[in-house]
Amino acid sequence: MLLFRQLFDLESSTYTYLLAAGKERQAVLIDPVKRQVNQYLQLISELGLTLVAALDTHLHADHVTALGELKQQTGCNVLMGEQTKAQGVTFFTDKERLVFDDLILEACYTPGHTDDSYCFVMPDRVFTGDTLLIRGTGRTDFQNGNAALQYESLFNRLLTLPDETLVYPAHDYKGMTVSTIGEEKRYNPRLQVASKQDYMTLMSSLNLPYPKMIDIAIPANKQCGLT
Amino acid sequence: MLLFRQLFDLESSTYTYLLAAGKERQAVLIDPVKRQVNQYLQLISELGLTLVAALDTHLHADHVTALGELKQQTGCNVLMGEQTKAQGVTFFTDKERLVFDDLILEACYTPGHTDDSYCFVMPDRVFTGDTLLIRGTGRTDFQNGNAALQYESLFNRLLTLPDETLVYPAHDYKGMTVSTIGEEKRYNPRLQVASKQDYMTLMSSLNLPYPKMIDIAIPANKQCGLT
Repeated sequence: MLLFRQLFDLESSTYTYLLAAGKERQAVLIDPVKRQVNQYLQLISELGLTLVAALDTHLHADHVTALGELKQQTGCNVLMGEQTKAQGVTFFTDKERLVFDDLILEACYTPGHTDDSYCFVMPDRVFTGDTLLIRGTGRTDFQNGNAALQYESLFNRLLTLPDETLVYPAHDYKGMTVSTIGEEKRYNPRLQVASKQDYMTLMSSLNLPYPKMIDIAIPANKQCGLT
Repeated sequence: MLLFRQLFDLESSTYTYLLAAGKERQAVLIDPVKRQVNQYLQLISELGLTLVAALDTHLHADHVTALGELKQQTGCNVLMGEQTKAQGVTFFTDKERLVFDDLILEACYTPGHTDDSYCFVMPDRVFTGDTLLIRGTGRTDFQNGNAALQYESLFNRLLTLPDETLVYPAHDYKGMTVSTIGEEKRYNPRLQVASKQDYMTLMSSLNLPYPKMIDIAIPANKQCGLT
């Protein structure tokens, strides 16, 4: 049976996911936030779990990752995509199966928001990072973002998952907690474009403000948050 | 199959729940917030549901209810506990089974946070309003709150549910989304008291600030939010 907890960092509107399946009670955290480490460790302890790994979907620009801190405090393995070139982590690559006890996450390389963006696929759900948000997609104007690649990641990878697949993003800013692939196909305004070119035009016209945390978060996250 | 969505109002940290089960695709909202009505109605439409009812666990002091607005816009039934004496609603009472398509919610009268507090019980989960929060309980110093009655509501009603029952509260202020009865029994600091008297002493020593929205929200909510 899957133990699953969605946790929300109110300051950065980040969703962190705690997962565990199997007799060994091995737990994994996806996209943990450094300032919430004590909350995670307390919950993991209360649930009788052992943290064995923490993963980031990409180098986050809006918060400092908890990976380094969690590794220091618990000895857990910490993983990021190979493209991050981050220090002190184990790299995963496209289509790699990450196995923890009875939990299997398949890494799915989805560049576009950044050049190091991955999603993690399970049979009934997908953790979409900032690639696919609920009724949105991640911006593509920083960190080697690329709207053409994001279009391909969305349409050729994520949207080929079954319609009923649950979508758990790394952020939401409007209080939504979950969606499905089918819903996003039909109602995500960014996915209603007629062509890759239209998507690129749409993404280049967003005029978003400069990410306020990026100059702190990116260098920190390349060191696993240990700065 | 249960369709279930947890929605979060960031301003009041309120959780609203959208539920639907059955062929008729009848939907119910628990504790909807007035300023989020458009979001609810859009989501309900996108999911192909028909809103048939909206329920409040109690007269909220921190936000204005969406019940009246939803009734006006959709013609749905709106329900509150009989003790609210609210205008324009259908009252439910203790142990009443509220049936919507294949969805059955059992109203469970749990006074203490207020004198009109109810929880809604399903086979695998309970919506606990402000009676039982994740690692907390609702304050008892306003709206005919009563720590002795809350102790009884907690220990004699909610904590008698199976340990694995999922706990979905009306609020969380730390980014937690769900718990279980078993977890709260063991780790909720308010539930570690030795006696009802100890609980009353604990609750009377909290020195909480005056609820900033109460003078607006309570009169509005007695009119279903239509003021």
